[in-house]
Order: sequence, then structure tokens, then C-alpha cells
Amino acid sequence: MSHSQRLASLALELPPVPTPVAHYVPARIHEGLVYSAGQLPFMNGDLLASGLVGESGSVTVEKAHECAKIAALNAIAAVSSEAGGIDYIEKIVRITGYVAAASDFQGHAEVLNGASAIVGDIFGDAGLHARTAVGVSSLPLGAPVEIEMIAAVREN
Amino acid sequence: MSHSQRLASLALELPPVPTPVAHYVPARIHEGLVYSAGQLPFMNGDLLASGLVGESGSVTVEKAHECAKIAALNAIAAVSSEAGGIDYIEKIVRITGYVAAASDFQGHAEVLNGASAIVGDIFGDAGLHARTAVGVSSLPLGAPVEIEMIAAVREN
Amino acid sequence: MSHSQRLASLALELPPVPTPVAHYVPARIHEGLVYSAGQLPFMNGDLLASGLVGESGSVTVEKAHECAKIAALNAIAAVSSEAGGIDYIEKIVRITGYVAAASDFQGHAEVLNGASAIVGDIFGDAGLHARTAVGVSSLPLGAPVEIEMIAAVREN
Repeated sequence: MSHSQRLASLALELPPVPTPVAHYVPARIHEGLVYSAGQLPFMNGDLLASGLVGESGSVTVEKAHECAKIAALNAIAAVSSEAGGIDYIEKIVRITGYVAAASDFQGHAEVLNGASAIVGDIFGDAGLHARTAVGVSSLPLGAPVEIEMIAAVREN
Repeated sequence: MSHSQRLASLALELPPVPTPVAHYVPARIHEGLVYSAGQLPFMNGDLLASGLVGESGSVTVEKAHECAKIAALNAIAAVSSEAGGIDYIEKIVRITGYVAAASDFQGHAEVLNGASAIVGDIFGDAGLHARTAVGVSSLPLGAPVEIEMIAAVREN
Repeated sequence: MSHSQRLASLALELPPVPTPVAHYVPARIHEGLVYSAGQLPFMNGDLLASGLVGESGSVTVEKAHECAKIAALNAIAAVSSEAGGIDYIEKIVRITGYVAAASDFQGHAEVLNGASAIVGDIFGDAGLHARTAVGVSSLPLGAPVEIEMIAAVREN
């Protein structure tokens, strides 16, 4: 099953790729590797949530897990667009996930599993990635999660 | 116009590349990609500002925007040095920008536009990069902004 | 002297590579570059320390320096495993180091020198890397330091 078939079987669609307002792009390809810009949990033009994650914040771990999934979908859309389509993605190499959280937060992995799971659902073993999860003091526009991705691209 | 001619036409000069004190280097090249170390807004040996950015901090967004520009120039100097000169830079692939800020800060994009704009001014379309902006609790030496860059290098 | 001989001469052993619990892997290779996941200062299954680094935290800079060394060893183990063994590592390209710390902390470089020093001890000039050090609000499981690595791999 191709990546796009798998996407359809999951009843998922790649969202439209956002247009950055400054002199940068949603993803950039070079010699078979495509780098996404950091992607926020935008859905239909709105952030799914905003604020810090965890007991000291206003966003639950469950909600942040969903935000990680949506931000990952946006990152997949960005790298796919630059690759010429999702079926040209050979594998997901690395994901970096930033979680906006106070100093007492420890559930970063649980949040980021929302990104890793959707990548696994869509790409299977080709989605097995190295992952870095960190907690940051704030993210653009007050987003609770930001996801960045490096993917390998098949020649097309 | 070459990158170095464009730099001159902007009345800009690449700063000298700082010498790290530990066992690391300002930039490292491998197979046509050069990775900069994280660069701070040093100008003539001094940080342009220090402290957190935004209303809860001591550095204004305008000042931080200028810091992002200076840190980006330092990153360009670092990758250019490792590439054999700025004219061997083929394109800027990715910029990661860290902004030291409290949890209520939301203006990361505005700050990082200082870096994206100078990259665009110097490299034009070759400067179109993927960008990640995050807010962090602190940066080395109290710097308000840190910029890291990946650039593609032409054979020389 | 090979990397593995140097490791032995330092009376060091690479730790076992941890098994991630979610759909991701400790390191991922693509076309001669291997990316580690973010690695924590685990030693024999336990975190060497937890909490924020510096005077506003509970972890001293000296202890955090040791944590950076242990996390770097875990990252070396991860990239070596994916490369087919430490002797297939051609060079260390980049290290990103995250230090959990409050907004008044400025000693990130001192902490990260623990990672850079062990990489230099093991790899010599092949260990000369670009380095980014940032301070973050929190890290997974309350770890004080997290280390991520990109290494170039020799064909094997």
C-alpha cells in the first residue's frame, strides 16, 4: 500500500501547506533530504489550543497529544509538498518536538507520541524516526506544541 | 550579482569567525552541507543585548530583531568560512532560531524575521530557508537570541 | 588508534542502547549520516540527576557537566549501533545540547563542555563538531541535560 493509500484508509487528508509571511518557506529540499519548518497545530486556520501543557498550564497532556498529531500532519504536508507528493517520501529521518511547559513538566514523551503514532500509522516502518523531545518556555502565537521534521525523498 | 557583491552593495561585512574555547568548531562541513554552531548576537566582541525578550523581560522585540540579524550574520560568517567563502554557499537550507523569553511571549516570528530578512537580502532566492522558531528559558551568557544554520555548498 | 581502541584506553564502554517505547528509534541513518534521538543522562537504567541546573535549581553545574558526558556517551552508543560499530563513525558533525535551567542561568557552555570533551577524548580531531547550547524550561522525566548528535558514517 502506498503512503497516499494508507492516508486514505485512515480517513486522513493532508492539510493545505501554510504560506509563511516572511522570507522563508514551509520546507526546503537538498540532495534527497527535505527539512520542514517548525509546524504548529493549526487546523483550518486556527490553533487547536494555546498555552502551557501540564498541571501548571492550561492545556492537558491529552489535548497536547492531539496537538502533536495535528502539527505532525502539517509537517508531513510541508515535506510532501516539497517532495512532489507524499508517495515520494522514502522515510522519516528525524522529528524534533517542542512542548511549551513549566519547569515541573515531565510528560514530553507522552505528548510527542501523538506525532510518532500518526507518522507510524501513515508510513509504517518507513516512519521509524529518531526523535528529540524538549520542553520550552514559549512557542510562536502561544502554541503548546511545535514539530519539525527531516524526511528522505525518493527520486522522482 | 554574487553573494559577496550583494554583501558589499548592502554595505555589510562578514564579521570575523569566533574561536570556540572548548573542543568544538564554529561550523562543520560534510558532503556538501555545512552546519553552523549556534551563534549569539556578538558584535565586536560584545553581546548586543542580554536578558529575556518581551514585556516580561528587558529586551524589546525591536532590539531582539536586531540581535537576530547580527546572530544570523555571525552564522553566515561561520558557514562561509567552512565553505571556502560566501560565494561557495549554494543555498541556505534551514535556520533554527531560539528566543529567550517568558511563557507569555508570542512574538517569536517577529524576532526571527530579523534573521530571515538579512539572509534574503544577501542570498535572494538562494536564501529561502525552512525555519523553526522556539522560545527558551535561557541562552549562553544571557543572550536574548541564538541562530543556527544549515547551508548547502557548491563544489570548489 | 581506532575509536574502539581509544575507548578502551580511556577505560570506557559504550552503554547498551535504550529501546524507545513509542514508534521511534534511538538513531536513524540515511546516506552516510546518522541522527541520534535526544539522549538523556541514563546510567544503568537510572537518571544520573533530575531537576534544573544552576543556583535556581537543584543540580550543580559540575553535576550537569557529568550528565552531559553520560548523555553524550548514550548518543555515541546510539549512532554507533546504527552505523555498525563505533569504528564506522567517520566524524561527529553536530551536537545540540539542551540544559534545563531557569532564566538567570548563563553557564550552558560549561555544562556542554562535558559532552564536547568526551567526544574529543574518544574521536580526536574526527570529533570536532558544530555545537548548539540552549537552556530549556524542562526535559523528559525531569532530566537536567539532553544531547542530540549527527555523525557521518564510513561505508561498511
